[in-house]
Amino acid sequence: MQNGPVTNELLPVSAAIEGGVLSVGGAPLPRLAEEHGTPLVVYCERTIREAARAYREAAPDALLVYGTKAFPNVAILRLLAEEGFGADVSSGGELELARRAGIPGERIVVHGNNKGDDELAAAARLGALVAVDALDEIERAVAAGVRRALVRVTPGIEADTHEAIRTAHHGSKFGLPPHDAIAAIGALRDAGVDVEGVHVHIGSQLLHLRAAGMTVEWLALFSARCRAELDWTPRTIDLGGGLGVAHVPDEAPPSIAEFVAAVSGELARAWALERLEPPRLVLEPGRSLVGRAGVTVYRVGSIKRASEATTYVAVDGGLSDNPRPALYGARYAALLANRADEEPGEAYAVAGRHCESGDLLIERVPLPEPRRGDLLAIPATGAYTLAMGSNYNAVPRPAAVLVADGAARTIRRRETMDDLLALEQG
Amino acid sequence: MQNGPVTNELLPVSAAIEGGVLSVGGAPLPRLAEEHGTPLVVYCERTIREAARAYREAAPDALLVYGTKAFPNVAILRLLAEEGFGADVSSGGELELARRAGIPGERIVVHGNNKGDDELAAAARLGALVAVDALDEIERAVAAGVRRALVRVTPGIEADTHEAIRTAHHGSKFGLPPHDAIAAIGALRDAGVDVEGVHVHIGSQLLHLRAAGMTVEWLALFSARCRAELDWTPRTIDLGGGLGVAHVPDEAPPSIAEFVAAVSGELARAWALERLEPPRLVLEPGRSLVGRAGVTVYRVGSIKRASEATTYVAVDGGLSDNPRPALYGARYAALLANRADEEPGEAYAVAGRHCESGDLLIERVPLPEPRRGDLLAIPATGAYTLAMGSNYNAVPRPAAVLVADGAARTIRRRETMDDLLALEQG
Repeated sequence: MQNGPVTNELLPVSAAIEGGVLSVGGAPLPRLAEEHGTPLVVYCERTIREAARAYREAAPDALLVYGTKAFPNVAILRLLAEEGFGADVSSGGELELARRAGIPGERIVVHGNNKGDDELAAAARLGALVAVDALDEIERAVAAGVRRALVRVTPGIEADTHEAIRTAHHGSKFGLPPHDAIAAIGALRDAGVDVEGVHVHIGSQLLHLRAAGMTVEWLALFSARCRAELDWTPRTIDLGGGLGVAHVPDEAPPSIAEFVAAVSGELARAWALERLEPPRLVLEPGRSLVGRAGVTVYRVGSIKRASEATTYVAVDGGLSDNPRPALYGARYAALLANRADEEPGEAYAVAGRHCESGDLLIERVPLPEPRRGDLLAIPATGAYTLAMGSNYNAVPRPAAVLVADGAARTIRRRETMDDLLALEQG
Repeated sequence: MQNGPVTNELLPVSAAIEGGVLSVGGAPLPRLAEEHGTPLVVYCERTIREAARAYREAAPDALLVYGTKAFPNVAILRLLAEEGFGADVSSGGELELARRAGIPGERIVVHGNNKGDDELAAAARLGALVAVDALDEIERAVAAGVRRALVRVTPGIEADTHEAIRTAHHGSKFGLPPHDAIAAIGALRDAGVDVEGVHVHIGSQLLHLRAAGMTVEWLALFSARCRAELDWTPRTIDLGGGLGVAHVPDEAPPSIAEFVAAVSGELARAWALERLEPPRLVLEPGRSLVGRAGVTVYRVGSIKRASEATTYVAVDGGLSDNPRPALYGARYAALLANRADEEPGEAYAVAGRHCESGDLLIERVPLPEPRRGDLLAIPATGAYTLAMGSNYNAVPRPAAVLVADGAARTIRRRETMDDLLALEQG
């Protein structure tokens, strides 16, 4: 039993409660908070490995690359490389992290709507697969020495997810409409680049499979058109990431197995219908690998009854370590990590520490009456949290630890005021 | 004449166009881009000084403190200290920046809905004025040695600004409802703390004066209630910041002189009506000091016709240096800094470089047909841009320079990949 509306599906697979204390990977969160300070992002190694293996088993022949942007971190990249994953990167910085994690170029896919010449050259040096995203990138990619490419194409399907993270609607800043994509494939091939296939992105944090299925149908049609117009068909189909994770109990995304089975089943069916050669699948999971693995642990500070309806519980982080509520209206659940077996009472608003009304992590969550010094844990915060964090209010960003078998190792150290001051000049 | 819908009111006061080139503080932006790289945030010293002097002249007896969170930077704090400003800080980090800028404690106001014991102690050591924000802060403030306090009180007036930056609605995470505020004033005085007055915040980016006027009326009533219940009246009234700046031509905020005159006139009138002693005014401008002073200069990269209706111009920054469009739906104008005298043609969407659909800086802005390598300048980006910036996609954050008399000095250096790698462990 645990308090708040937190269900087991929201917590890392290794989460356990003993004597009222929540532990992850065998490490009690109060001990981790004591040793590493708060806020602290605790990643469960087993959750990441199990998710990676679920992809591997469901798609043994696919090229699986980690959507690095979800949490760009060398240790996580290395761990995923051990599970056979490569990296999907979208900047020179992410490419450098993948390189430092020892990921070989043939398992790196390079994205970006506005790649610099230096980024194209770095990708070429590593022999990475470059997803060409614009007509004016072709000449530059060729000049930079890129030999292997995908072309990113944009269908008009709108996925059922928040507008800001929909990426395949008509008029997206990413990719090329079909006519331009065909021109790009032709021009790249004319320049001697091996165009291995096409990339299409159907959105992110998808909670249903309908949009993914539609996209695959559309891609088969597009591939048939390529055959007719170019006498070329894609031998690689990169469908991006897309699969969501549950952040609150009423979200029920498909499992990794269901998602991959639906996508690859649809791919086989649609390809057979168009009599196309079965392609190699590329998947770029980010959130579904690390989202559930991460739990953010905060120390409770001020508690304030602000009105009849609302009592605020303030924690020692917020917007700076997790801007998703402010950016996307993202919802979260929470529990008290040091009193995890107590019955929840009334509902509380969980506020961050920043000088900003929008710095509200959770609008309402039932908790046992919180006290100063309690540890508040927010599950499913492994993706797009620290990755998008800021130094708002000159607040240094938290550390991240990776836990397994009761031991925790720091994979991203806590920022210090000295780090912030290092940028000040004059 | 300049292109885009950019009017002079959006640009720094020193902006000029000569031979098609936009300069700020006598420094041509193409030269600055060459010397310092892009993206680059260019601050005009004269714009900041003139805004500071406008406050000074309009409120010669007020304590004026810079809302540090708008752009926490030692050089800017120092410049404003020269103009007689103190600092409004809301974290230990911001307090440290103010201390390094040499601002004395008597000109520092410390805010925060969840101050740590260490932060209260640092404020006490400097002799700063602490805005007590919660009942459970009283004992801790006293224990930390705080001797001078304001109490933050929360009225129910809703200002006409974006919900996320409204801060005085019922149930705000900030401040205390009237009954609790009176209890706090009493308890602090009983503990020997000099309660100098009250703080109230009416919102930010206010474009009209109605809400500010209503708040002052309400405060007078609250002060009269304090006299009746506590035999005490505030001798200091801190009204926060609040005044907005124009980001697009159709926004027309009051001038600093109009804003201060309205606020102080209302204060005098309302206080006289309640036969209260005229208080000292504290104002905490942030955005209205540095917002207009800052211009962000980007290098144009990929240009893409995505549909009949939309052509994207991608620049080399975005969400990482200015998350306001994604966070608040903030609108901006733009012009080409290297071809500033050319007639604008069709409207373009200005996209950032990040792997995120929400990374769109401007939805539609008319520009002369942009070309790769052009410099795109976005005015009125001096506040809450870099301050809230992130390293999304492992992208280092840009530098900021301060310009005057044709010379530019770096006030915040560009982040490097090494800065980012310094946090990686294991």
